[in-house]
Amino acid sequence: MSDTEAPVRSRRSRRGRAGRQAAGTQAADTSVPYITRNIPYYEVLDDDGLSLIENNAETILEEVGIEFRDDEEALQIWRDAGADVQGQLVKFPRGMCRSLIQTSAPREYTQHARNPARNVRIGGKNTVFVPAYGCPFVYDMDKGRRYATIEDFQNFVKLAYMSPSLHHSGGTICEPVDLPVNKRHFDMLYAHMKYSDKAFMGSVTAPERAEDTVEMCKILFGDNYIDEETGKPKTIVTSLINANSPMTFDDTMLGAAKVYARNNQACVVTPFILAGAMSPVTVAGTAAQSLAEAMAGMAFVQLVNPGAPVVMGSFASSISMQSGAPTFGTPEPALVLYIMANLARRLGVPFRSGGGFCAAKVPDAQAAGEAVSTLIPTALAGVNFALHTAGWQEGGLVMGYEKFVMDADNAGMMETLLKGVDLSENGQAMDAIKEVGPGNHFLGCAHTQANFKTAFYRSPLADNNSFEQWESEGSKSQEQRANAHWKKMLSEYQAPELDPAIDQALLDYMEQRKASFPDSNIS
Amino acid sequence: MSDTEAPVRSRRSRRGRAGRQAAGTQAADTSVPYITRNIPYYEVLDDDGLSLIENNAETILEEVGIEFRDDEEALQIWRDAGADVQGQLVKFPRGMCRSLIQTSAPREYTQHARNPARNVRIGGKNTVFVPAYGCPFVYDMDKGRRYATIEDFQNFVKLAYMSPSLHHSGGTICEPVDLPVNKRHFDMLYAHMKYSDKAFMGSVTAPERAEDTVEMCKILFGDNYIDEETGKPKTIVTSLINANSPMTFDDTMLGAAKVYARNNQACVVTPFILAGAMSPVTVAGTAAQSLAEAMAGMAFVQLVNPGAPVVMGSFASSISMQSGAPTFGTPEPALVLYIMANLARRLGVPFRSGGGFCAAKVPDAQAAGEAVSTLIPTALAGVNFALHTAGWQEGGLVMGYEKFVMDADNAGMMETLLKGVDLSENGQAMDAIKEVGPGNHFLGCAHTQANFKTAFYRSPLADNNSFEQWESEGSKSQEQRANAHWKKMLSEYQAPELDPAIDQALLDYMEQRKASFPDSNIS
Repeated sequence: MSDTEAPVRSRRSRRGRAGRQAAGTQAADTSVPYITRNIPYYEVLDDDGLSLIENNAETILEEVGIEFRDDEEALQIWRDAGADVQGQLVKFPRGMCRSLIQTSAPREYTQHARNPARNVRIGGKNTVFVPAYGCPFVYDMDKGRRYATIEDFQNFVKLAYMSPSLHHSGGTICEPVDLPVNKRHFDMLYAHMKYSDKAFMGSVTAPERAEDTVEMCKILFGDNYIDEETGKPKTIVTSLINANSPMTFDDTMLGAAKVYARNNQACVVTPFILAGAMSPVTVAGTAAQSLAEAMAGMAFVQLVNPGAPVVMGSFASSISMQSGAPTFGTPEPALVLYIMANLARRLGVPFRSGGGFCAAKVPDAQAAGEAVSTLIPTALAGVNFALHTAGWQEGGLVMGYEKFVMDADNAGMMETLLKGVDLSENGQAMDAIKEVGPGNHFLGCAHTQANFKTAFYRSPLADNNSFEQWESEGSKSQEQRANAHWKKMLSEYQAPELDPAIDQALLDYMEQRKASFPDSNIS
Repeated sequence: MSDTEAPVRSRRSRRGRAGRQAAGTQAADTSVPYITRNIPYYEVLDDDGLSLIENNAETILEEVGIEFRDDEEALQIWRDAGADVQGQLVKFPRGMCRSLIQTSAPREYTQHARNPARNVRIGGKNTVFVPAYGCPFVYDMDKGRRYATIEDFQNFVKLAYMSPSLHHSGGTICEPVDLPVNKRHFDMLYAHMKYSDKAFMGSVTAPERAEDTVEMCKILFGDNYIDEETGKPKTIVTSLINANSPMTFDDTMLGAAKVYARNNQACVVTPFILAGAMSPVTVAGTAAQSLAEAMAGMAFVQLVNPGAPVVMGSFASSISMQSGAPTFGTPEPALVLYIMANLARRLGVPFRSGGGFCAAKVPDAQAAGEAVSTLIPTALAGVNFALHTAGWQEGGLVMGYEKFVMDADNAGMMETLLKGVDLSENGQAMDAIKEVGPGNHFLGCAHTQANFKTAFYRSPLADNNSFEQWESEGSKSQEQRANAHWKKMLSEYQAPELDPAIDQALLDYMEQRKASFPDSNIS
């Protein structure tokens, strides 16, 4: 890392106080920066059931092992820690991974945004809704399905910034395929930094791109990069380290994980599993394998830098046993989700899963039904970092504009759900019931007058009008209303203020780095 | 009741053994007759919170009271029981209603179908999914929105009969407005009896229609009408007794309730509440009022005939505070649902609520998202009698053909969810994980081969294919696939066998009764 730290220091000093102020003075709007739940978790298994899964995960770690591919440093780290390394296969004494995690991994952590009012707390009773990630295509009703561009990427950063129910700017929201593969991470990071002041994710597609991420974070935060209390770097990015399930981590992901861990940036370690292909066809088998893989990855991060924030991830869907195609919103993955959230709480680490998944090609009934079928479990299970909450379409191949605002609406409903039940005197409303009495209505009573503004969740996209009014307004489907909605949002977008000196420093860094190697479109 | 019992006895003897056989020999298909849950309930309030709501309900019963309108017999029943009757307003000593219910109301009961393999058990850990109820309009993609006819009614009875995830034929699935208001109950009942062998609901729009319902049940069941063990009539219909919220029951509903209770038929007592109009704008206030109203109604049924089956109902949605229009699928009613299910369990009676509500005019993303947003709480809360599970569209004004099969698909997913997690050795799948190992796939392993047929829920309506295949098949929305699906179902419909003698007896009864009074279209 030392080779990239020097130029940043000089740039940091160049910004001075103006930089610090710009990074910290964005006015917070009235929405909450993240949700703190006030309702219980839903848990499908009892202690015995959970212990059984945990025990099976230990058996997998001990007897089957996890491959750490093409990364000799990683294997040496495991050898030094006392694991049984055979070639690239690592086998772990029972309890070793769990103990490594519980010894040093934080139960929760703060991911810092350049606007401190938008810092998110990952873990505990908190839920952070995050846009979808990694889609090569985009879709909107006007132009249909097409490859994503950096303009689309910027649009989604803006939409997430403007969505009060999305607490995070996300990461690779869509792949800007109009830019060279080996340089697009600069432009994606810059878009998050420039067009939003919410927290974001880093690049993981190569270790040097993770390093670029860290360097750009240092520029963005300037003197605020180091936490004054701890003397350590603030955690500014939470990044996605996926296992190559079953039971494999590759050198790309391990390389990125090492960079982030050493810089105190957070890693979400996620077995990405389509059950039936990358895990057994059963819920209990998929859960045990997911736990084993996630624990091995998180323990590795703790060995690299004890105390670096890690999040236990679970991405589990199933496949059609007829066609092999991934399916979404089905009940079995929801059961996996409930179990994994519970296992993460028992392990004592934050949990990532869920979102607004669907296999639908257009934002129709299938899209909405499947999305809600995962989003409700996401909320009830207690997911802390809810990646893929908004925009996910066609099994993750497509980021949908209409789907994005529909999902954000659903996330808003989850926020209300998670707030729970007001049992105060005003919430009990006994005065209202006594005032109104049998056979009358509550529309005009004092209690209704006092509470109607905040009484019920108000969807910007649902049509509750009469059939006749709906018809007179053009008989629009929700997709059509969503289409008008995201366009209106983009037309009203106003960028959060960014200190011009920081902006220039970011641009300078990108220009210099981009010039240092040729364009490539190979990974 | 005595005036209508005599002709039935003679008809019953006419049918003899053939009638008994026909009513009992329909072959059961492979689907389960109802769901018995194997996962925990989701509960949003703790004991203190629930006790607070219960206490407030008692205060409403004691201090505000419930009106029993235009039914002197009902008021006299309450006077005799020791309630404080002032005009039509009844006030109840604290604990009186709860005690009446807990003394005699069954915790669960069997609702008998003419095919005993389709009997449903209402209460306990069981969930019965039931079609929507009461819609004056129907919708399909081909003909759009229009008034419902008896042909539509028959079609939905057939579709429910053919849907393995719907366990019940429902009641007034849609209003056959092509028939006189005062005679259409005969044709609706006959459709349930003729075109399905699943259990159904009775007429409640006038006491004499409830009596017709009972008489037709006697004809349908013949010698099987009386339970041999108890000597009492079998419970053949579960019918819908709604409160006129707030805090009112009218003579129509009370009259029907008395008929059903005296014949040991089940009453679902449901406060029908649009919160903000018929109850306070808060969750806790709506729950307390709903509990008070439901308890008063159920206690009344127990006074009429101690031991008659009652179901505690809750229909709670909210309204748009801008337009006054009802909204569906929003988070506040889901919170009410979780609380009410919990209160019913504490009271010790079966619970009715939930379904596939939506305000959408067409089966689009709004329809699906809102429907699932209620159906998942329906499953997790532990609803026993899930009325309105399939077909509900446009706030209940419309029964939708496409929506019906989409909802039935979602109900199938809930069945899989409620089945829970298989923790057997096969469910744990450790052999599969050991066989496959790191970096390989599970598609061909022995465990997958042995389990793939039943591994995952298989939706008949979701499209999981590639974009290219979906496009080559016409780029169909889920609505379009659903349209083809229900038509195919109807084209393949085969009626369950019905003894011709019973059939003729039913037709004779209807003809005679219809001839005894003139057509009317006034209520």
